[in-house]
Amino acid sequence: MAVYTEVSDEDLAAFAKNYDFGEILSAKGIAEGVENSNYLLQTAKGPYILTLYERRVEPKQLPFFLGLMEHLARSNVQCPVPLKGRDGEALRTLCGRPAAVISFLSGLWPRRVTAEHCAELGAALAGLHQAGMSYEGKRANSLSVDGWLFLLSRIAPQDAENIERGLNDLLTEELFAISKAWPKAGLPTGIIHADLFPDNVFFQHGKCSGLIDFYFACNDLLAYDIAICLNAWCFESDGSFNITKAKRLFAAYQAVRPLEPAEKAALPILARGAAMRFLLTRLFDWVNTPAGAMVKPKDPREYLLKLNFHRRVSDLGAYGLS
Amino acid sequence: MAVYTEVSDEDLAAFAKNYDFGEILSAKGIAEGVENSNYLLQTAKGPYILTLYERRVEPKQLPFFLGLMEHLARSNVQCPVPLKGRDGEALRTLCGRPAAVISFLSGLWPRRVTAEHCAELGAALAGLHQAGMSYEGKRANSLSVDGWLFLLSRIAPQDAENIERGLNDLLTEELFAISKAWPKAGLPTGIIHADLFPDNVFFQHGKCSGLIDFYFACNDLLAYDIAICLNAWCFESDGSFNITKAKRLFAAYQAVRPLEPAEKAALPILARGAAMRFLLTRLFDWVNTPAGAMVKPKDPREYLLKLNFHRRVSDLGAYGLS
Repeated sequence: MAVYTEVSDEDLAAFAKNYDFGEILSAKGIAEGVENSNYLLQTAKGPYILTLYERRVEPKQLPFFLGLMEHLARSNVQCPVPLKGRDGEALRTLCGRPAAVISFLSGLWPRRVTAEHCAELGAALAGLHQAGMSYEGKRANSLSVDGWLFLLSRIAPQDAENIERGLNDLLTEELFAISKAWPKAGLPTGIIHADLFPDNVFFQHGKCSGLIDFYFACNDLLAYDIAICLNAWCFESDGSFNITKAKRLFAAYQAVRPLEPAEKAALPILARGAAMRFLLTRLFDWVNTPAGAMVKPKDPREYLLKLNFHRRVSDLGAYGLS
Repeated sequence: MAVYTEVSDEDLAAFAKNYDFGEILSAKGIAEGVENSNYLLQTAKGPYILTLYERRVEPKQLPFFLGLMEHLARSNVQCPVPLKGRDGEALRTLCGRPAAVISFLSGLWPRRVTAEHCAELGAALAGLHQAGMSYEGKRANSLSVDGWLFLLSRIAPQDAENIERGLNDLLTEELFAISKAWPKAGLPTGIIHADLFPDNVFFQHGKCSGLIDFYFACNDLLAYDIAICLNAWCFESDGSFNITKAKRLFAAYQAVRPLEPAEKAALPILARGAAMRFLLTRLFDWVNTPAGAMVKPKDPREYLLKLNFHRRVSDLGAYGLS
């Protein structure tokens, strides 16, 4: 939930003059995305999203993200596209921040994930990976193993202990183990979304109507993106793993892009890494969010449970993969 | 900034069947109103607001509020109106909460208030007061003097002292003084908005395009509503009172409904009361909002400065009233 920057009506009216959508009839701050300020604009030509990029997005990486959205949309991935102004530019400045107007995508994200959603997700993710192959932009994943080590170094051991006794030791040992076992080569790489949680996937009439929020996208192992989705989509609220959801996800993904044997073999370690990534960022936000902040941090313990599930996995059958 | 209740796509689709606006294409939680959950719906028939009423709104008072909006709109006050479903009902239940769909109002609320805004506000407020005269619904103001005494009794003296040294004594003495001096009779009463802050007043092309958020509306002294606006609209961010803004507000208001001499004479005490009302609710929220809550409480000290300004007022010239 965001809206960090209040845009004045004068600034907005001046900003609107860069575009062909006519007058802005309304601008509502929306509770979407925790990294940026988002406004839903009503214009004479329909709704648009106005995004002001805040702290966590590096301005010099914005052309990579905006270019990716354009590339994917041209390749028939359903996703929003940046709107170009009269000057041909999509990226400009508003209230001292980089800002862009993005097309509006119909659909609702699923509050209750079903196995059908997971099948739709699998197909959409594979389509994204295939379309990303021809994108020329490159961006390293700043939240892979090295990034996790850095994050852990910034979390005081006592803060981790306060969340759960023994957590600091567990994180240190587990991160060492993941780091050693992480696949160094031999797996297909390409553009990954890297944050494809249910609130970033819209559905209409039971079908995926589009993917949003590409601001963690980067070049990395394609199967790691699946591992993130396993964590984000296939666990129930009681912490149990739903193998039916995972099977549907894999089946739909592989109908588009079959997994290589090395990718399947790497899944348990990739899933552990994905759980570690979200456990660490949530833990970092949990201990660093001041009281009275505008964003409520997410409970890191959810991902501790998921991490522990993956640590116990001994064969791929646990994920519904033969 | 709100959205307390997450509405699932299934619940929303079922809810939409009660209305004639067709399919809901999108539902975005919006950062508007701190008391309720608000979604901006995109439908085949255009945008609407879906409101789920949370903790602070008593369900049995909802017919008063919804009826008031209908009454005002019929009387040419620009404000949203509740949409009736196929069954003729505007109020129904969603996710276990009372819920209503409200028409969409174009315009933006002013982030930087100008004297012109204050003139528009004055005319709109007077129009609201006049139109309210013929509304049959009645609701006592639960946030008048008795309500303030109750609130103060729920704030620990030490919590007040932690905000500012001497604050507890000041509140106690000042509330006693206000209570004694509060006008008991002789002033015109009627429907007041009671929360007409800039974020509840929309503008388009410099003109007021409508008023929103009637969930504090009640029967009370009309001039008290002006006193609330003086506090909310006529102070600068450095704490100084802008007499030009007040003059424009009064002039525009009185062009529609001239103030009686007794109302003018009561303004300083009404303004002190209005400052006390928001000081107390902010103080209460400040000390009672848990760390990590979704709503960032507003700093009560802003209203302490305003209260102290009004305490020093010795004649109406300070407000730009002769």
